Amino acid sequence: MSNDDLGHWMAHIQARTEAALESWLPASDLAPTRLHEAMRYATLGGGKRVRPLLAHAAGALVGAAPGALDRIACAVELIHAYSLVHDDLPCMDDDVLRRGKPTVHVEFDEATALLAGDALQALAFRVVADPGLGIPSDRQLALVAMLADAAGSRGMAGGQAIDLAAVGQTMSRADLEFMHIHKTGALIRAAIRMGAACGATADPDRDTALDHFGKRVGLMFQVVDDILDTQADTATLGKTAGKDAAQDKPTYVSILGLTDARALADELLAEALASLEGLGGEAQRLAQLAQFIVHRKF
Amino acid sequence: MSNDDLGHWMAHIQARTEAALESWLPASDLAPTRLHEAMRYATLGGGKRVRPLLAHAAGALVGAAPGALDRIACAVELIHAYSLVHDDLPCMDDDVLRRGKPTVHVEFDEATALLAGDALQALAFRVVADPGLGIPSDRQLALVAMLADAAGSRGMAGGQAIDLAAVGQTMSRADLEFMHIHKTGALIRAAIRMGAACGATADPDRDTALDHFGKRVGLMFQVVDDILDTQADTATLGKTAGKDAAQDKPTYVSILGLTDARALADELLAEALASLEGLGGEAQRLAQLAQFIVHRKF
Repeated sequence: MSNDDLGHWMAHIQARTEAALESWLPASDLAPTRLHEAMRYATLGGGKRVRPLLAHAAGALVGAAPGALDRIACAVELIHAYSLVHDDLPCMDDDVLRRGKPTVHVEFDEATALLAGDALQALAFRVVADPGLGIPSDRQLALVAMLADAAGSRGMAGGQAIDLAAVGQTMSRADLEFMHIHKTGALIRAAIRMGAACGATADPDRDTALDHFGKRVGLMFQVVDDILDTQADTATLGKTAGKDAAQDKPTYVSILGLTDARALADELLAEALASLEGLGGEAQRLAQLAQFIVHRKF
Repeated sequence: MSNDDLGHWMAHIQARTEAALESWLPASDLAPTRLHEAMRYATLGGGKRVRPLLAHAAGALVGAAPGALDRIACAVELIHAYSLVHDDLPCMDDDVLRRGKPTVHVEFDEATALLAGDALQALAFRVVADPGLGIPSDRQLALVAMLADAAGSRGMAGGQAIDLAAVGQTMSRADLEFMHIHKTGALIRAAIRMGAACGATADPDRDTALDHFGKRVGLMFQVVDDILDTQADTATLGKTAGKDAAQDKPTYVSILGLTDARALADELLAEALASLEGLGGEAQRLAQLAQFIVHRKF
């Protein structure tokens, strides 16, 4: 598969994900309309859809039905979107720009942003639990549990709490890794695990390899995010650049320096790719996505 | 069953619920400790546990296993607790007192309160989806969907959005009912439906009757809440009294007057009790709870 293929495939998955999100989000003319407008504003028409791409690539590897993967993609993206809405609130990162648009609390108001995030989280679980996913019910229940673990206090929300506590503090590289494994890594890893769990058969070795891949990619994503925050401009990122330094947050760049942070990203990429060895040619899509994530410009 | 029995039974269920919450909430010495402390502070050691009581009473009526009902009780109470934490935030009702204690954002900080609420919501779904509930997996999945619907934009979060938009506005009685059916009613109704869904057998007539009961009780709960806000003092309520009028919120008292609001509560109680007719002597516990809710002083 060439990178040209990759571009087409990514556009295809992004369009499928957009359609799935569109179909699950309540219509904006349905009461309460302002809340539904805010939920749609937060979710539709933007974002790289990294988690949906990973879910689809992992699912394709195990022969999962594309319709089931659309649901997983939708659920992880809803959790991601809610986390961005809450993360941008004044009591958190207090940011005004996201995906090149005003953040939800700027476009609407703080209370609406809070409730839109809350409702997006509930919707994510609704999407996973809905009948007709086409896999055994006990496995579908396991997907709900995976998503809850990834989103909760031992996953994403916990990572954000550690992030908050880190402002203005010195942090060891081990602590920084612990934070990011939770804040960013948990949901990226869940996207891959959940996609793989939609396959017809379980294969413990394969699933372990995919999970190892997910862990490395999740951490790599954040290392690159830290680099981009210092190197790219706001227009390219679609969010405020230089925010980490302005907020005095420890990052891979502040702790390791730019050169070593780049080397770490490359090292994590190599480890991620190594974990795919033995999974056959179908793993190529995941390898391409890992490369895309490390080389991305926004 | 006498009211003395009721008191003992309520204390028993409240203690069981406390134990279940205690066991599902992460320990406060587990990282991130501050987040886990806030989650526990928001949830443990307080509250009337109305939703758990209703879930247990509905479940007992259908012969559900107490252990399964502990899980339902725990899940609905986690959703309720998270909604209070977010509702008390400065961008929402901006309240400093809840269950006789400083609200979470006062005791901790706003960001921690936001994340604790987020993590409590995720935990609620985790509790419902965990294996070993002892009912068929497809029914367990339906419980996840019920909880998500009750919590989401067409349920509790939607009701809160309507509530926000209502501040300083005139509202018809029909609009007020629409708001409360969502804001308070959805989760109370879900507690009863979810409890009943843990029974060994489905009985459409029984489930319809219970759902009708749940709708009436949910609305009645809010009518009484509106009355108590004007009649009780802060020390008795454990939360700021007179808040609705101070915030210029439409309530049953502001729209109907105190006398008619009381009459409405009595009317809803009569309708709730009527819907239990034909369900046999075991429905007595639900009837007692409905009476407790309408006659409560806090």
